[in-house]
Order: sequence, then structure tokens, then C-alpha cells
Amino acid sequence: MTSVEWVAGKIRFIDQTRLPCEEVIEETSDYTEVADAIKKLKIRGAPAIGVAAAFALLLAVEDKRILSAKDLEEELSTAINVLSQTRPTAVNLFTALNRMRRVCQSFSHTDVVTIRLHLIEEARCIQQEDVEACRKIGEHGAALIAPGSSILTHCNTGALATAGEGTAQSIITTAARQNKIVRVFVDETRPLFQGARLTSWELIKHGINVVLITDSTAGYLMQQRRVSAVIVGADRIAANGDTANKVGTYSLAVLAERHAVPFYVAAPTSTIDLGTESGSQIPVEQRNEEEVTHVGGKRIAAEGVKVYAPAFDVTPNQLITAIVTEAGVLKPSFREAIAGLRLQSSQQAVGPT
Amino acid sequence: MTSVEWVAGKIRFIDQTRLPCEEVIEETSDYTEVADAIKKLKIRGAPAIGVAAAFALLLAVEDKRILSAKDLEEELSTAINVLSQTRPTAVNLFTALNRMRRVCQSFSHTDVVTIRLHLIEEARCIQQEDVEACRKIGEHGAALIAPGSSILTHCNTGALATAGEGTAQSIITTAARQNKIVRVFVDETRPLFQGARLTSWELIKHGINVVLITDSTAGYLMQQRRVSAVIVGADRIAANGDTANKVGTYSLAVLAERHAVPFYVAAPTSTIDLGTESGSQIPVEQRNEEEVTHVGGKRIAAEGVKVYAPAFDVTPNQLITAIVTEAGVLKPSFREAIAGLRLQSSQQAVGPT
Repeated sequence: MTSVEWVAGKIRFIDQTRLPCEEVIEETSDYTEVADAIKKLKIRGAPAIGVAAAFALLLAVEDKRILSAKDLEEELSTAINVLSQTRPTAVNLFTALNRMRRVCQSFSHTDVVTIRLHLIEEARCIQQEDVEACRKIGEHGAALIAPGSSILTHCNTGALATAGEGTAQSIITTAARQNKIVRVFVDETRPLFQGARLTSWELIKHGINVVLITDSTAGYLMQQRRVSAVIVGADRIAANGDTANKVGTYSLAVLAERHAVPFYVAAPTSTIDLGTESGSQIPVEQRNEEEVTHVGGKRIAAEGVKVYAPAFDVTPNQLITAIVTEAGVLKPSFREAIAGLRLQSSQQAVGPT
Repeated sequence: MTSVEWVAGKIRFIDQTRLPCEEVIEETSDYTEVADAIKKLKIRGAPAIGVAAAFALLLAVEDKRILSAKDLEEELSTAINVLSQTRPTAVNLFTALNRMRRVCQSFSHTDVVTIRLHLIEEARCIQQEDVEACRKIGEHGAALIAPGSSILTHCNTGALATAGEGTAQSIITTAARQNKIVRVFVDETRPLFQGARLTSWELIKHGINVVLITDSTAGYLMQQRRVSAVIVGADRIAANGDTANKVGTYSLAVLAERHAVPFYVAAPTSTIDLGTESGSQIPVEQRNEEEVTHVGGKRIAAEGVKVYAPAFDVTPNQLITAIVTEAGVLKPSFREAIAGLRLQSSQQAVGPT
């Protein structure tokens, strides 16, 4: 299963809002529809959003009326603007958009056909790098997992969230192939149930023993010493290792520390944002009230209630045991470890901050 | 609004599973229907369950065919057995059943009419004591709340959960009348959304500023220093102060400690079980998988997933700042404070353990 694909000049993606009950594949040649799909979480997961945005830019510059390099650059710029407004927290989005913009700029002295070819190449490259990053994250991370482990994970970090096998989930599936995993506790992950809907669905396909829990059962499980390690993904990692991820991650990190359970963050280096000094600078997206007050279109909350619905929270680096990237396993001090990666400046985000 | 009432030889209760969308009042003269209502959480909340069980015993002994004190005692015993199988954790259920059994035993030398009269009196007494306990818990607890407070609460501990104004919620409404409450953050409380459905509904009726959050948002709120105090109820408090309450309470207690936020447990002394030495001895009810895999009858989780669904968790006494009872505010060491209450032995539980 592939979350998002570039097929014959169109983008094809699975509508994640309808999983696991319906497997609906959507196809579009309109980049604004991709932007809309990202906003509505039909496409979600930090790395997958980056890949989808890169492909969306290809759609934006395909217009037959674009005749000059300058026209193309303007069209690309408009599309980058639209796409960068979709979701504020995941930095992979901005990383991908910036890479595409730079390629366009580098070839602005050439012609439309040449620029398009290089843009396609760059988008494919972003995709392929993520596939490879997922594979390596799986390998590096699985080495941290002891045989007989029960892993706790949050939200969805699998094939749906990336171009490859996932981030945190790639560690789980890789370790499972090494027969190290006894079971995976999956937080249902309110409000949108990505754990219940997506992670359970993916892990069951992998033949893994999945136990679904409500988010607030995680603490009780750790208290009973039933969790060997917590592994989560990331939407943005600051230069000091502070990590924004799906709301609830911070609570898991606090609970893991209390119970001396290792707490691993798994992400490609494209999720590291050198332009963000620490977690307090990460913009946290607020979601629509109805995601909390309604389930499946049906109201569950009392009328007149207000809602506070941050999509993410920020886990301070002190609570993180290790950050698993394709470049290896980073350990504290994370600021030094991240600086040691010598990430290219192209991976610094220019977001809508 | 009254959660459960004894009206002209019948029991009347509001079906809490249909709130807040529908306010359905059920009425029954069959005690097994009350047992069923407790099992299905139409009636819920530790104190309310105790009151409902006492009233249910009145229904059980109303049968016209009961002619002797011995017949009545047998009928009562059968009903106690049925009711004690409904839910294992809330000790108020067993406390109420035991009190009714003792009254029956005390008057076994008299006649059926006399025993019935004393049973009615005892049931009314259990109800009235709870009303009074709620009032006093509110008073004692409100004294702990500083003006300008933002309170975080979990599950439902209001009029629906008790015979009176509630436990934790009575503190909130009392402090609100004293103009000390700026807002109340209400955990939605998965899986059955008692926070979203019931607590929000009740607090809005009280004119309180309610902000609904998903359960795993609580940690992020505390990290932002937006919570002045956490107040929760209890289903059973062991002799050392360890407290069983709705799953998720333990996580809140850990997070509160980390952020130096006071963590208060509010409960009538009927929730204290001297027969349970510590939290590890409290039986924790496991709920049906479908409460997690389905919402409003609709499946949300992937097919084939297993579920771990404890209804409660246990918070160790070290994480509790104070236990607010009708008899006053208990502070550590809780074992000594609880022993100092000199609770009657009738308040010791004989449960289905």
C-alpha cells in the first residue's frame, strides 16, 4: 500500500479519513485538491505530506499555458503559497516545498521543459529518500528493541504516513520480522482515531499482535510494567531535540520517564528543523471543535461547550531516550547530535510562521 | 435533576447512556432491571450505584408472595447476589447492600411489614447521607480552591453520579458559587465520553465556563501552566488512600505531580473500603471491547484488533494531595487520616471477590 503516488501525470492517494471501513483511492490532476486533501487529513503524516506537496507542485506547473521559465516560477510560487497554508506543524511540508523552489530557481535560465524534468526528478527524489529513510530508521531502531518486547505506539506512523514503511512503525515491523515483538499496544489516538483506524489496520496486515487501548490507558499499562518501550513519530524536531508530535505524546513521555520505560522518537532527518531553536517556537495547529464534539457526524458532547483542540504537543528533549533517524540513532545531548548530522541548509524550513 | 429516585414503590432514573442528546426517564418495579441498568451504565457513578442498589432491594422484597421474615431474608439475599454481580470496583455498591442486609438481619425476629419499613428507612438514609455528603464535600473542597482557578476534571462526578450535587463536581459548583472558578477543563473521558456527554452537560446547566478536551490533551495543558488543580472522584479508596477511579486518573495524577498541580480526590466516606489494604487489592473491571472499537454503534477500529479495556486504574496515595470527604479534608499520611475517621465496620465491603 502506498499513501501517495505520482502516476502518469496525476496524483493518486488513499483517502485516510475513510479507513479502515472503506479503501477509497482518489486521483487528481489539480494541486488545490491535494492541498484540500492535506487540510482534511485525507493525506496525513509528516513525511507523506511532504511527498504529496512535492507532487502537487508538479501538477501546478503542468498547465499548457505556461510558456516561459518566469511563468513557471510564478505558478510554482503561487502553488507553494497555497500548499504552505495547509498545515503549520509538520516541517517536512516546508522542507519539500523549499527543495522544489530551489530546483526551479537553479534552472530558471533554462526552458519550461527542462525545469519540469528537474522538478519531477526532485519530487521523485524526495519520495525515494523517504522510502530509504524509513527502511534505515527501521533497521537502526530495531537494534534498540530487545526480544520479547511489548511496544506502545501513538497515532499512525506507518506506510500511510510516509512514502515507505513508516517511521516508528518501521521500527516495529522490522523488529517484528526479527521476532522481537510480542505485542503492540496501539493508542486509539483521539480525536481522529488514527491509532484505532490506521495503525491497527496496518499492523494487522503485517500479522502483528495488536492490542488497542484508549489513550489514557497507557499510564495504567506502564504502571503494570507491561510496556517495554514507547516509540512515536514526529511532526517537527527542533534543533535541540524538542519534538512536536500528535497530542498525547508529551503525556506518554512523562509516564515513560516515571516508569523507566525507554521513549524513542523516530523520524527522517527531513523532520528536523534547524530553523527552530526549541520546542516553544514550534507552531501548534489548532483543529476544528467538531473533531472533538462529534464522532462519525454524530454529536457526543453537550451543546454550548467550548473546545481546546491542539493537534500536537511538544515533548522536551529531556524526556526522549533517543531519536532514530535514517542517519543513525541520536542520543543526548541532542543539540550536539543534531548539529553533528550537518544537515543541508535546504532542510531548514521556511514556513508560514 | 436526580440520577435515581424512589417514587411510590418504583425506581425512576435517567438513562445516562442517552445523554446529552436525549433525556429519557425510565421507571421500573423489577430489581433485575435495575441490576441491568447498572451493568449497562444507564445508572453509573459510585454513590449513585449504591443508592440505586438499596432501592432495588426494596423492589426485591415487595413481592406479595413473601409472607415470612425468613422468605424476605432469602429474597433479599438472592437480590443482593444479583446486584453484587453488576460491577466489581465501586465499593459503595457493596457498602449499600451490606447495610440493607444488616437491617434485615436486625429485624428478622419481627414481621415482613416491619422489616420492609426499616429497609425503606435505611435506603432513604443511604440516599440522604449521600446528599448531605455531597454538600459537605463541596464545602470542604471549595475551601481548597483559590480565586481565579482553572480546574481540570475527569469523567462525571456530578448529580448524575450521586444522590446529591456530586463529589468532585460538588467542589467545582460550590467554588463556582463563590466566584473562584474561571473555567473547568473537562476530559472527554474515553471510552464512554462521560466527560463530554455528562459533565459538560451538567456544568453548562450550572452556568460554568466549560472547555472540553480529549483525555491526552491534559498533559499539554498542565505543561502550559493552565491548570490550577485537578479534582477527580473515586470508585474505591483503600485503607492506605490508594484510589481506584475511571481509567486515565492515574495518568492525570502523574502529570499533576510533575507540574506541581494539586491533585484532589473527592468522595464520601462510603467510598473508603477499610477491607482493602492497598490499591493492588482493588478488583478492576474490564469492559466490553466494543466500547473501544465502536462509537455510537459504528465501528471505528480495524477488524481483528484485540482490546484492553479496564474501566478504572489505581492512583497510589503518594500522588494524592488530599482526599476530600464529608468528614473533612484528609491529608497524608492517608492511612492514619483514614483510620482517624473511625468508620463503622458496616462500611467495609463484602464484594464478589
